[in-house]
Amino acid sequence: MTRPDFRLADIVEKFGGRILGDAETRISQIATLEKATVGEIAFLANAKYRKQLEGSQASAAIVSEADAEATQIPRIVTANPYSYFAKLSAFLNPLPEFASGIHPSAVISENAVVSPDAHIGPHVTIAEGARVGAGTVIMAGCSIGADTVIGENTRLYPRVVVYQNCVVGDHVILHSGVVIGGDGFGIAMDAGRWLKIPQIGRAVIGNHVEIGANTTVDRGALDDTVIEEGAKLDNQIQVAHNVRIGAHTAIAGCVGIAGSANIGRYCRIGGGAIILGHLQVADQVEVSAGTVVTKTIREAGTYSGTFPFGENQKWRKNAAQLRHLDEMADRIKKLEQQIEILKEKNA
Amino acid sequence: MTRPDFRLADIVEKFGGRILGDAETRISQIATLEKATVGEIAFLANAKYRKQLEGSQASAAIVSEADAEATQIPRIVTANPYSYFAKLSAFLNPLPEFASGIHPSAVISENAVVSPDAHIGPHVTIAEGARVGAGTVIMAGCSIGADTVIGENTRLYPRVVVYQNCVVGDHVILHSGVVIGGDGFGIAMDAGRWLKIPQIGRAVIGNHVEIGANTTVDRGALDDTVIEEGAKLDNQIQVAHNVRIGAHTAIAGCVGIAGSANIGRYCRIGGGAIILGHLQVADQVEVSAGTVVTKTIREAGTYSGTFPFGENQKWRKNAAQLRHLDEMADRIKKLEQQIEILKEKNA
Amino acid sequence: MTRPDFRLADIVEKFGGRILGDAETRISQIATLEKATVGEIAFLANAKYRKQLEGSQASAAIVSEADAEATQIPRIVTANPYSYFAKLSAFLNPLPEFASGIHPSAVISENAVVSPDAHIGPHVTIAEGARVGAGTVIMAGCSIGADTVIGENTRLYPRVVVYQNCVVGDHVILHSGVVIGGDGFGIAMDAGRWLKIPQIGRAVIGNHVEIGANTTVDRGALDDTVIEEGAKLDNQIQVAHNVRIGAHTAIAGCVGIAGSANIGRYCRIGGGAIILGHLQVADQVEVSAGTVVTKTIREAGTYSGTFPFGENQKWRKNAAQLRHLDEMADRIKKLEQQIEILKEKNA
Repeated sequence: MTRPDFRLADIVEKFGGRILGDAETRISQIATLEKATVGEIAFLANAKYRKQLEGSQASAAIVSEADAEATQIPRIVTANPYSYFAKLSAFLNPLPEFASGIHPSAVISENAVVSPDAHIGPHVTIAEGARVGAGTVIMAGCSIGADTVIGENTRLYPRVVVYQNCVVGDHVILHSGVVIGGDGFGIAMDAGRWLKIPQIGRAVIGNHVEIGANTTVDRGALDDTVIEEGAKLDNQIQVAHNVRIGAHTAIAGCVGIAGSANIGRYCRIGGGAIILGHLQVADQVEVSAGTVVTKTIREAGTYSGTFPFGENQKWRKNAAQLRHLDEMADRIKKLEQQIEILKEKNA
Repeated sequence: MTRPDFRLADIVEKFGGRILGDAETRISQIATLEKATVGEIAFLANAKYRKQLEGSQASAAIVSEADAEATQIPRIVTANPYSYFAKLSAFLNPLPEFASGIHPSAVISENAVVSPDAHIGPHVTIAEGARVGAGTVIMAGCSIGADTVIGENTRLYPRVVVYQNCVVGDHVILHSGVVIGGDGFGIAMDAGRWLKIPQIGRAVIGNHVEIGANTTVDRGALDDTVIEEGAKLDNQIQVAHNVRIGAHTAIAGCVGIAGSANIGRYCRIGGGAIILGHLQVADQVEVSAGTVVTKTIREAGTYSGTFPFGENQKWRKNAAQLRHLDEMADRIKKLEQQIEILKEKNA
Repeated sequence: MTRPDFRLADIVEKFGGRILGDAETRISQIATLEKATVGEIAFLANAKYRKQLEGSQASAAIVSEADAEATQIPRIVTANPYSYFAKLSAFLNPLPEFASGIHPSAVISENAVVSPDAHIGPHVTIAEGARVGAGTVIMAGCSIGADTVIGENTRLYPRVVVYQNCVVGDHVILHSGVVIGGDGFGIAMDAGRWLKIPQIGRAVIGNHVEIGANTTVDRGALDDTVIEEGAKLDNQIQVAHNVRIGAHTAIAGCVGIAGSANIGRYCRIGGGAIILGHLQVADQVEVSAGTVVTKTIREAGTYSGTFPFGENQKWRKNAAQLRHLDEMADRIKKLEQQIEILKEKNA
């Protein structure tokens, strides 16, 4: 398969930036500075990799103004090389196209409304009352519940499940194994047994949201669970019932968000963090990986709370003392009092 | 779709409690105090939301004796508003019914025994020797392994997998993406390579258990992995081989339970907790979210162990000192000894 | 079903070791010391279970030289009872065989190449350009993306998804719900919105790798994500883009590994650990369960970092002091200075 190639001149015409060096240089793919070879363009988004630029075999590079003269290979100079790279790569690597139509093995309810411009893959099931918009691709083995609405130009990878009566917006990407709208964890103790509380809210996924493999987003108990526009969720995240995730918030893998937590816009949550329920996180909060957020965060900023790891024997000793930290505080206070007495005597 | 509605008088006849206000008030759905509108009943289970009761547009409310006069809207007074709400909501929101029968796209072994009163959805596979009980619903794309027994009135949402030779009880709910009976993580090092240890025990899921989306329960190595009656598991929990989870224990999302851990009855495990293997947890133990349980817990009670999160700069300083806590303890001891000497000199 | 049985004499001929007691003893299955009964062989791999050996009803046992005389029941003495057990159990419990051929409900692209000696189960989809090797079993509902290569004698349990253009080696086991080659979490902020960075690297799974249920391995951003030969991954692990996991490394459940982390060979990572991105972990490193690895580990050894859990009230007090640990360190330093002054005065 020969890939189409483009002149740097074509690229800046499309995406902006200015060229230093030969504008006729042809490139067909993006690569890392380390691995790039003839016909490939690399990018330098972080000054600490400048050394790699020197030895790079790339045919061209995308660099910031500050790095404009850090190499002599043909280059595109732009304010934000990383987003330039993202745009150029999306241009060079378009998503595979899927022909419109419904695979004969799919099982579509007569009462479902599927756009003729949608692609429905093998072994998909779409229940009564569901709707699927134009340009949407639903790959093999997905299951769409009754009365659920899937918007336009959305892409569901194989084996995604969306339960009944949910909403998935336009330009959404759901990766394999994602489960949207499963029952929230609602139980009430009654005479020694847990009663199930029906989960009658919806899960509502905004436009331009992407959700990684095996992530789960529960439906609401009474009101809805909502993921706002442009939020990006990595793999294996658990979003409990009635959570709200603000627009353009990015959440790394393995995060757990408990019921009714309300996360702001433009937050960044690190991998493996746990956000407890019924609390607020302000806009533009960054939570470090592995942190357990136990109460409301009212101010933008970076919040952390992990035990510093180290060599086991050392950790063991420090952790053992940690069990006595409250007593240590008392002993320090007592020492301070005694010192004061001695100081007076010695004055 | 018009929902059926009921008089408060009908409801207390069915579920008990006493009415204050107009017993002819008709309601058709449950809602939160905040969102409820005409025809809806809200509930007050926690005194801290009493303020919302004042402004609520609900047609009726479920309240405790203590809150019987906290509002003048028609109300049902009951000892436990939360479980009353659970029961009433289940009545008002019955599960969708599924017609008996086997979808033609399902692949059922000739040697499997499926009750004629079960519903088997599209693209399901049921292997030889498996049995499925009456009233059970197995939705699209589930896979039931050889010789596995699924009880009665049990519900498997789309894309559940139960491996061979497992047992799933009656009135069980398994949400999408659940995997029951996958191999436990059993390996033995032999001459620089890991040998796989066959996992020949079963996974046995008791009656009235509910398991959330993408949770995994491994089969036993030699003996069985067991989840006892009435236990409730949220999403994305990992239950390793030979774990036993006691009856009516509730486990929140993202918990990991290592091999051969034995969890008691009526425990409550918070989200993201990790329970190490080969240990016991007594009945009625509560483990806080994010806690790593590293040894046996013999007494009922609440157990915790997370690093208190905070503003990053502050955490960084405290965490840095934590690496020296053992030395700090030594320094305090030394200070105490020196103080004693000085006190004697100054006596 | 009658299981075939074997004499101890047959077994040592096949697997080595020496017999003490009746070499004609017949066994047909492996069991634990506690549960074993007539016809079953148990093993003692850990001296702390020696007491169970005394009361065991097993017909025979596998023991180390050190325990050769710890029982009088017929026994096989061997250097490593645990790996002996693994080998014998694999012999007594062969994997179920699957007939070659393609189930009629599977949807296989005309341009895919499936070995006539492979088994393709119901509702499988295999896209154009994909290849599946001899002896490989792909169970119900798996989805194999375009141009992906699956090796020989590999086993995919139901509902595994492998995205396009990935490589899965020979003798690999992928459990249900595994997703290989989903897009890595690559986003670039541009004018208040996240741009998606196309993920054009592959996910490459080496020979003899086993991956547990619902584990996800993302494809690389530009270069590949690689899991080397013989590595063993438990359930619900998240492996981000461009991670490399060295040969024969074993990773327990619920671990999250962030982008571009480079884990060595023969490492052992405990359950629920988080490994941050862009760092190295040396060969033969052991990471304790629940530890957050925040920087490169250059030396083999055991590393830990969890908060010691305990009774909630006690933890609460210690955790409260932890927020003041930096101040405590200052106070200790000040006390030391004051003591020095007092000591001089009292000299």
